[in-house]
Amino acid sequence: KMIQECVNGDDDTLDSLLADLATVNNSRERANKLFQWLISPIPAKAFFRDTWEKKPILVQRKNPHYYKELFSTAKFERILREEDVQYGVNLDVTSYTNGKRETHNPPGRALPYTVWDFYESGCSIRMLNPQAFSSTVWNVLSILQEQFGSMAGANVYLTPPGTQGFAPHYDDIEAFVVQLEGKKHWRVYNPRTEDEVLPVLSSPNFSQADIGKPILEVVLEAGDLLYFPRGFIHQGNCLPDAYSLHITISSYQKNSWGDLLQKVVPAALEIAMEEDVEFRQGLPLDYLTYMGVQNSDKDDPRRTKFFSQIERLMKKLPNYAPVDAAVDQKARDFLHNCLPPMLTSEELASTVQGAPTRWERGQVKDVGAQINTQTRVRILRAGCARLCSDGEAVHLYYTTENSRVYHKEELKSFEIKPEHTDAVEFLIHSYPKYVTVESFPCDAAEAKVALAERLFERGIIHTAEPL
Amino acid sequence: KMIQECVNGDDDTLDSLLADLATVNNSRERANKLFQWLISPIPAKAFFRDTWEKKPILVQRKNPHYYKELFSTAKFERILREEDVQYGVNLDVTSYTNGKRETHNPPGRALPYTVWDFYESGCSIRMLNPQAFSSTVWNVLSILQEQFGSMAGANVYLTPPGTQGFAPHYDDIEAFVVQLEGKKHWRVYNPRTEDEVLPVLSSPNFSQADIGKPILEVVLEAGDLLYFPRGFIHQGNCLPDAYSLHITISSYQKNSWGDLLQKVVPAALEIAMEEDVEFRQGLPLDYLTYMGVQNSDKDDPRRTKFFSQIERLMKKLPNYAPVDAAVDQKARDFLHNCLPPMLTSEELASTVQGAPTRWERGQVKDVGAQINTQTRVRILRAGCARLCSDGEAVHLYYTTENSRVYHKEELKSFEIKPEHTDAVEFLIHSYPKYVTVESFPCDAAEAKVALAERLFERGIIHTAEPL
Amino acid sequence: KMIQECVNGDDDTLDSLLADLATVNNSRERANKLFQWLISPIPAKAFFRDTWEKKPILVQRKNPHYYKELFSTAKFERILREEDVQYGVNLDVTSYTNGKRETHNPPGRALPYTVWDFYESGCSIRMLNPQAFSSTVWNVLSILQEQFGSMAGANVYLTPPGTQGFAPHYDDIEAFVVQLEGKKHWRVYNPRTEDEVLPVLSSPNFSQADIGKPILEVVLEAGDLLYFPRGFIHQGNCLPDAYSLHITISSYQKNSWGDLLQKVVPAALEIAMEEDVEFRQGLPLDYLTYMGVQNSDKDDPRRTKFFSQIERLMKKLPNYAPVDAAVDQKARDFLHNCLPPMLTSEELASTVQGAPTRWERGQVKDVGAQINTQTRVRILRAGCARLCSDGEAVHLYYTTENSRVYHKEELKSFEIKPEHTDAVEFLIHSYPKYVTVESFPCDAAEAKVALAERLFERGIIHTAEPL
Amino acid sequence: KMIQECVNGDDDTLDSLLADLATVNNSRERANKLFQWLISPIPAKAFFRDTWEKKPILVQRKNPHYYKELFSTAKFERILREEDVQYGVNLDVTSYTNGKRETHNPPGRALPYTVWDFYESGCSIRMLNPQAFSSTVWNVLSILQEQFGSMAGANVYLTPPGTQGFAPHYDDIEAFVVQLEGKKHWRVYNPRTEDEVLPVLSSPNFSQADIGKPILEVVLEAGDLLYFPRGFIHQGNCLPDAYSLHITISSYQKNSWGDLLQKVVPAALEIAMEEDVEFRQGLPLDYLTYMGVQNSDKDDPRRTKFFSQIERLMKKLPNYAPVDAAVDQKARDFLHNCLPPMLTSEELASTVQGAPTRWERGQVKDVGAQINTQTRVRILRAGCARLCSDGEAVHLYYTTENSRVYHKEELKSFEIKPEHTDAVEFLIHSYPKYVTVESFPCDAAEAKVALAERLFERGIIHTAEPL
Repeated sequence: KMIQECVNGDDDTLDSLLADLATVNNSRERANKLFQWLISPIPAKAFFRDTWEKKPILVQRKNPHYYKELFSTAKFERILREEDVQYGVNLDVTSYTNGKRETHNPPGRALPYTVWDFYESGCSIRMLNPQAFSSTVWNVLSILQEQFGSMAGANVYLTPPGTQGFAPHYDDIEAFVVQLEGKKHWRVYNPRTEDEVLPVLSSPNFSQADIGKPILEVVLEAGDLLYFPRGFIHQGNCLPDAYSLHITISSYQKNSWGDLLQKVVPAALEIAMEEDVEFRQGLPLDYLTYMGVQNSDKDDPRRTKFFSQIERLMKKLPNYAPVDAAVDQKARDFLHNCLPPMLTSEELASTVQGAPTRWERGQVKDVGAQINTQTRVRILRAGCARLCSDGEAVHLYYTTENSRVYHKEELKSFEIKPEHTDAVEFLIHSYPKYVTVESFPCDAAEAKVALAERLFERGIIHTAEPL
Repeated sequence: KMIQECVNGDDDTLDSLLADLATVNNSRERANKLFQWLISPIPAKAFFRDTWEKKPILVQRKNPHYYKELFSTAKFERILREEDVQYGVNLDVTSYTNGKRETHNPPGRALPYTVWDFYESGCSIRMLNPQAFSSTVWNVLSILQEQFGSMAGANVYLTPPGTQGFAPHYDDIEAFVVQLEGKKHWRVYNPRTEDEVLPVLSSPNFSQADIGKPILEVVLEAGDLLYFPRGFIHQGNCLPDAYSLHITISSYQKNSWGDLLQKVVPAALEIAMEEDVEFRQGLPLDYLTYMGVQNSDKDDPRRTKFFSQIERLMKKLPNYAPVDAAVDQKARDFLHNCLPPMLTSEELASTVQGAPTRWERGQVKDVGAQINTQTRVRILRAGCARLCSDGEAVHLYYTTENSRVYHKEELKSFEIKPEHTDAVEFLIHSYPKYVTVESFPCDAAEAKVALAERLFERGIIHTAEPL
Repeated sequence: KMIQECVNGDDDTLDSLLADLATVNNSRERANKLFQWLISPIPAKAFFRDTWEKKPILVQRKNPHYYKELFSTAKFERILREEDVQYGVNLDVTSYTNGKRETHNPPGRALPYTVWDFYESGCSIRMLNPQAFSSTVWNVLSILQEQFGSMAGANVYLTPPGTQGFAPHYDDIEAFVVQLEGKKHWRVYNPRTEDEVLPVLSSPNFSQADIGKPILEVVLEAGDLLYFPRGFIHQGNCLPDAYSLHITISSYQKNSWGDLLQKVVPAALEIAMEEDVEFRQGLPLDYLTYMGVQNSDKDDPRRTKFFSQIERLMKKLPNYAPVDAAVDQKARDFLHNCLPPMLTSEELASTVQGAPTRWERGQVKDVGAQINTQTRVRILRAGCARLCSDGEAVHLYYTTENSRVYHKEELKSFEIKPEHTDAVEFLIHSYPKYVTVESFPCDAAEAKVALAERLFERGIIHTAEPL
Repeated sequence: KMIQECVNGDDDTLDSLLADLATVNNSRERANKLFQWLISPIPAKAFFRDTWEKKPILVQRKNPHYYKELFSTAKFERILREEDVQYGVNLDVTSYTNGKRETHNPPGRALPYTVWDFYESGCSIRMLNPQAFSSTVWNVLSILQEQFGSMAGANVYLTPPGTQGFAPHYDDIEAFVVQLEGKKHWRVYNPRTEDEVLPVLSSPNFSQADIGKPILEVVLEAGDLLYFPRGFIHQGNCLPDAYSLHITISSYQKNSWGDLLQKVVPAALEIAMEEDVEFRQGLPLDYLTYMGVQNSDKDDPRRTKFFSQIERLMKKLPNYAPVDAAVDQKARDFLHNCLPPMLTSEELASTVQGAPTRWERGQVKDVGAQINTQTRVRILRAGCARLCSDGEAVHLYYTTENSRVYHKEELKSFEIKPEHTDAVEFLIHSYPKYVTVESFPCDAAEAKVALAERLFERGIIHTAEPL
């Protein structure tokens, strides 16, 4: 069953939910609850078991207010007016007319004066990273990324009545289409072949003739949700009577077993070559005379033997696979992609950003309000820091100094001395519990405080009470 | 047994052997015979079975003339005088005194005036690529590369009496030390650990304390041969009473199963990701919470399951391994490394280099002496050309326009149209038999002649009779 | 006389002045008045005649409030807390103790918690581009750049009592040291040699022994101004009883006749070579035998003749000097360096940023409020756009889409078609008068409106009345 | 008068002349005599006064043997057969048919088999650097470069009967067309405009309509010479009854006063900015408001003043012009472009290349044959080495380790210590006289011998008697 109907009350709007979530102690639990709200009334467990990566699903909510606090045309207008939105960087102007897909971006800043002119002439407007401009979108995505263990992104689409902005295509991400205002007519199609199931790359634009018959056709109304896995072709257009504003939340780009194996397998081979002399033994003197494409039709027992040896060696590779190290490589990519955490006002008071040290009437005040052994601390989010080893040194990678703009900052890290790795691991695994700096498994009290200072200054830990 | 003694007659010197080999019809057979001469009296078959890549072996020949036509100090003198030998590029001046290894290259050309001055002051002289200056070395190496199916290289070393030019070390190649003139005292040591058996990279310079006791100690005399596999540490020094000239012939650098797997394995994974949806399925939502170095001590059933899945997928990889295509990648590297064939005077007359077309007394003569359907042709050497496919187009790669200077030329190739691949494959597999152009499996006679012309003009094929 | 004393009333504070200046019709006049305020009571005319680029001057104002609205420690605190100030990029932590100058920047964001800790331990804090964070500084500098015809920059320095943050040195810019809070002891020294008068590059750090005796020594108090030309060595330190906050406003970096000649002279030579055959004639056959350093001691009449010819040709170069084109090259550099204009609220209403076109309750409103032939327009600032030719095409370069962050944006320009250059020139030269679009010297009314639209959309022109 | 007729005897052929020239003591005199032979019977002095860079001239010699030893089709055939001539690098195949100019180079080596096939089908063959393959051409050009003080180059052209290989065009070099074999019909045209007199760059291909009427039309026969300056348009074609082989000797590319000024002028400005404060003074505050293209129609007295100041400053530049240093920059370019000297057999015996130190029967011989204080030495050629200063260090630049292949080697030089510069200058200015090492103006005898050794080892000096 691909369609869920339900009637939601007005109480569960996003702002009150986010206020409630701010009191949830554990960021993973918080992520869970927010995701459950997103796909409600489908139970998350059932969703991931039956639907995720498998098939589209539709929630028709009959509640136009459900998602409205996430984003709106009013916020869009405010952003265009107040923020430095650049055509081609933050916003695209597109059209799809008579089977032709075009982009109309002029150079320079996208101001209401020109954007609305494009809109009035029938163009669709796509905002590429609303999280850089909207705190609510930032907050929601930064929470959801902990649910997915993979970057959560978003685009906003505004489409004039009676138009379509994009050609039919499939994407390389799991997509949650959240209808914010107005209505949009959607058609979703099965992947065309087995090879296009859960594809690695997005498709080009298709023509209508390429894609067969839709498996799902629906008019999405404000408050409705449409999910479809990567590989499902889709197109949406506005009916003559209504414009549409929706946001698509996405995740799981390049997050497959194969993507991880691309890190595991070459590393496994390198280790095998170091550790197993069979991998270092010379190839047969004459292998070029019976192997290779020009010999592939030959019926030669040496070919069989050669294939067997290759197979035998390849089957030994799992013995050398550095799985945890490869996972850490993927984790580092993820940490670099992450949005920084958005702080609640309570959190602000307990982090370096809100520390009381300040200039006041010609003097520095409260510079003494420092961390000591009795201070109780924890990491700011379950996933905001990660201890990885590159074989030689151990580094702590963290997201708290990331930018809301994708990859504007380098991945942040610093080296953790061998005598401090236990303490950092202890901190990470203690989450969501607060622990005293005293309790860090380090030798010297000084070292404990110095480590805590360092983590606090980078926003990685916060304190149980304000300093 | 690591030592072979024998007494060779004078008849089998290299020049007469090379003259004989010129009449051998098949270049692979020729390579075989030359290699057999090199390691005589050890039978090649036994050598490759018992010694190659396994242990050192010594042949004491009591015949100072056996190798003397391969290279000599007289030829060295001639080369310095007549050719553009550059310090640091073609020739190194080195010393190893009191445990200190130094290089003394000045800038510019290496002329006898300065080279012999260095020699007289106790420095060793290493010529880096004698094949670029000596036709005999070129000829020998270009034949041996067909025996090894891997690049054959050479260095020449001239050492003054009572000195040593290099610190103890091991190399990443199979080494045949051929004593040409004088004498040298050699010590050979076992690899220090299992990990240094058949190593991937050469070692740094060792101190005497690093290397233990030699397993072989001998004074090599002119006509003697010392072979040792990569990984065996070695050092050679001159006794006070004699200088030494030797040439080291080497092969099998980066020619192991592992080197081939470095091409096979990533390609196999890429294909698996295209063809097998299991590789494209998403990773578990929460894998970052129990995998990775910071979780490696955790006893979590999800870890076991994760490892199993990685292993299961890696064990499927051989099903997708494009072995022949990977061999062709290695083959292309080899073809690029190859020395060009050295032509006998008979061959010259039957190749494009010796074609009779010429300028004579104000006119072009014999421009009509062209290939026709009745011309009988074959490829010039068993391994001088190879048909490879990159998935889209088929190219013929060939060595006949390579330079005697390593990688001075790009790898040469040209595209073979689909309608001509059968003909080229036919030609390659017909070797060493000559075939008429008529017999090429192409449709049109014109196409046959055009193809033969093209191959002839690049020196890939030669004719049974001179044109 | 290098010292001016005066007593200013409280009425002329910056905020009220800037409010007044917003009503000044001509941006150049506005720049004049603001500069006059900066150096008051010295008359600007006298200043530029007697002091500018010649000698230091000091204004002791006995009015601590005079400059206080320009910047303050309170604003500093606000910026650190709210904006993304990065160590090393936007802010430096320095010290100069016992003759040793050090920088102490950690990586990452500069938050009050760490900045004030550095300050308390005796470090000076330099904010590198306060104009990016403070609207008042931005406004002041963007006005002053029209006065100087050269980029106006600023740094803010906060120094703890009893410390010095920088070694004695000279800069490559004209410096206006504006004391905002507290006090600072300054010593200013003459350039050490003729060659260091108005130098091209800043000096390294000097030791006290290098610099002689000060020509001016003074304690600057809040409200005071100290000006010194490039090349004058200076050092400032805090007395034990007071911290110091000052801002240094700078201009005229690389803005000398020589800097312009670097653009004029090679271009003149290129043109001379094209137009004057004497420059293309061959050098004497034998000139290498009597010219050059190894012949410079020779007394050879041919040398005299050669020098004469060089001199003769060089003296012809002014005939070919493309002065206006070279000025435009310099102008382009300046336009790229410029801060964007800061709009008053009145201006906002008459520019594209404040145009009424907007989204309101599900619809676009006032998209029709467009420019027509009756609209009265002018360029936004006297110097915000400039018409330059590269010989082939004519481009309009403009500053209105520049960033407050130095060179964050490329220099902005677009091509002006030949039929529109007169209209653009007319617009530029009409400033500060408004003109109707009708009056543009173009052929077609359509073209006039299209041109005005284009200029309006990039913020180059604004309208007399709000659209 | 553009045509010279003469009848030369057979005695003055090139080989005997070169043998005679080998005995001329001074390389500049040798260059003179060889050039005189080239243009004989025109006196060189008259040629350089009346013709060089001014107009074409033709010598009809009625002596087909005069130039024949310089190059020939027989040598061409030899080179193709024996040397590694590469299409596109060393040799071009061209045609000009029905007004269309084409190049037909295949990839790879140019062997007679394919080259003559192209020739037979009507293509012209151009050999791009015969000096790399022909010792005579190398010898002639290496001598002539001392005559010109500028690189002497050459191309060889072979054209089939009844064809033309190139479109009409002009070059950027002085051209001496030397007819070697056969005949060629030439047409020479005046430069089309004043701007194309002595042009800086070669022209594109012209159509016949572009070029007007020839000022000279002639059939060049073997032994004839045609000279024309850069800028004169020319085309040559073969009559139906004869092929043509000619060599064009060229010089004076980028060797004009303007080319030297490109080095003088920016350096003069840099020095002026360092030494003359007028160049460092700031531009007028308001210059951008009246200067620049948009103000170029303004009638403003400030413009006049601005122009005057620019002119005044430019006219001061000759005072700062580092003419000798700039000449040395040009000299270094020339030394890098130079062919290495070709040694006579006598010279060989007195240079490092021919030094007696050698390997003989297992030993180094004559390593003691070294330079001592009594050795008489001189530089090898008047222009083979040059002492230049970059302001800080003094270097000796030299041509003796250049390659016959253009820029295959970097420009060679080494630093001369301050205490040796006098000795090197003494050596250079003593040429062509030999001087004893003793007589070097250095302090220590050891230093003298060490310096002489160093110069000898790089081939810069040779000895009066063989070592």
